[in-house]
Amino acid sequence: MPKVRLEIAISLDGYAAGPNQSEEHPLGEGGMQLHEWIFKLAAWREPHGREGGEVNASTPLVEEARRGIGAGVMGRNMFGGGPGPWGDDPWPGWWGDEPPFHMPVFVLTHHEREPLTLGDTTFSFVTDGIESALAQAREAAGEEDVMIGGGASAIQQYLAAGLVDQMQLNVVPVLLGSGTRLFDGGAGAGLELEPLLVVDTPEVTHLRYRVG
Amino acid sequence: MPKVRLEIAISLDGYAAGPNQSEEHPLGEGGMQLHEWIFKLAAWREPHGREGGEVNASTPLVEEARRGIGAGVMGRNMFGGGPGPWGDDPWPGWWGDEPPFHMPVFVLTHHEREPLTLGDTTFSFVTDGIESALAQAREAAGEEDVMIGGGASAIQQYLAAGLVDQMQLNVVPVLLGSGTRLFDGGAGAGLELEPLLVVDTPEVTHLRYRVG
Repeated sequence: MPKVRLEIAISLDGYAAGPNQSEEHPLGEGGMQLHEWIFKLAAWREPHGREGGEVNASTPLVEEARRGIGAGVMGRNMFGGGPGPWGDDPWPGWWGDEPPFHMPVFVLTHHEREPLTLGDTTFSFVTDGIESALAQAREAAGEEDVMIGGGASAIQQYLAAGLVDQMQLNVVPVLLGSGTRLFDGGAGAGLELEPLLVVDTPEVTHLRYRVG
Repeated sequence: MPKVRLEIAISLDGYAAGPNQSEEHPLGEGGMQLHEWIFKLAAWREPHGREGGEVNASTPLVEEARRGIGAGVMGRNMFGGGPGPWGDDPWPGWWGDEPPFHMPVFVLTHHEREPLTLGDTTFSFVTDGIESALAQAREAAGEEDVMIGGGASAIQQYLAAGLVDQMQLNVVPVLLGSGTRLFDGGAGAGLELEPLLVVDTPEVTHLRYRVG
């Protein structure tokens, strides 16, 4: 049975983004620190069309996060940054014209929009809720898993609905002090967690759990 | 130079205690789950006067948390549970008549009280702030380290004041959903953290950092 996996980077004090998110700081002030460990990996750079990069203990996990995944789900902010409806010039996403997903991606939003195909990634915009988005992603993924990529709000909703099979937190050793908490509003309270894997480097600690 | 160490157990969603702390639930509802991993260890049971118990990957860390420590600091709630001033029948503490500390312990409180000696542990009550408590603990510890044992409020204050050299979080794979957050009010924001050690068992993941 295909799984619903989620993965997100957080600070040691539990923030998925820093405070004061803006066009200048789409991840909030200091939020980019949560992703520096991955930007330098060859396993991240190659699918993003960049050369070089490191190989370290995080490499197998980053590679694994791409294998066996048939579709993705993400929140509106993760897709496009910033609040508000689609404008004439919507944020193009972190990835430019060649998104690294290479699969169907379902974006949770309150604003209807025609599907957008960039390279071999098609973004579909789902306005009728998280269960609908997951059902569409499962259908598109076939025998493969679905990856919920964030952000915090999407993850909270999927945890609260008990729809997650596996959760990986990439814990970065910084204290942001404020911002968007991954765990807020009681999301996931009482779910059973079984530790599956711990991998650490000086820059990040990966904690993977089976979610019951 | 002796270090100021701190150590505390938290849930994966960052709570050091559950919601609705009361005499019945001094650690809050569900909060006892944060400590089950240690109660079953021989390394915890022996200094608490109990027989038996397990040996596992957590054992060396629990033993180490007692070695080289010359004095402790703790918050009022950790000492005695519950809010309010000392009554005629103050909470005797978790440990009964034979506390496991075997060292001077300085308790942060707003209410003056004569020192209390139980077994070979003397609790002194400090009403003039965290820096005074730490100075007294350093003096008592001599060449040995000082351990700040919690709870969340004491740790937040010491992190905010930049007085911590080493921090160990014992992360338990449960989601409490609400309660007392370890990291709240921006405590420690911007401190530099250097991962020193990661040890995991099915019941707890120990994350230790040097704090800059």
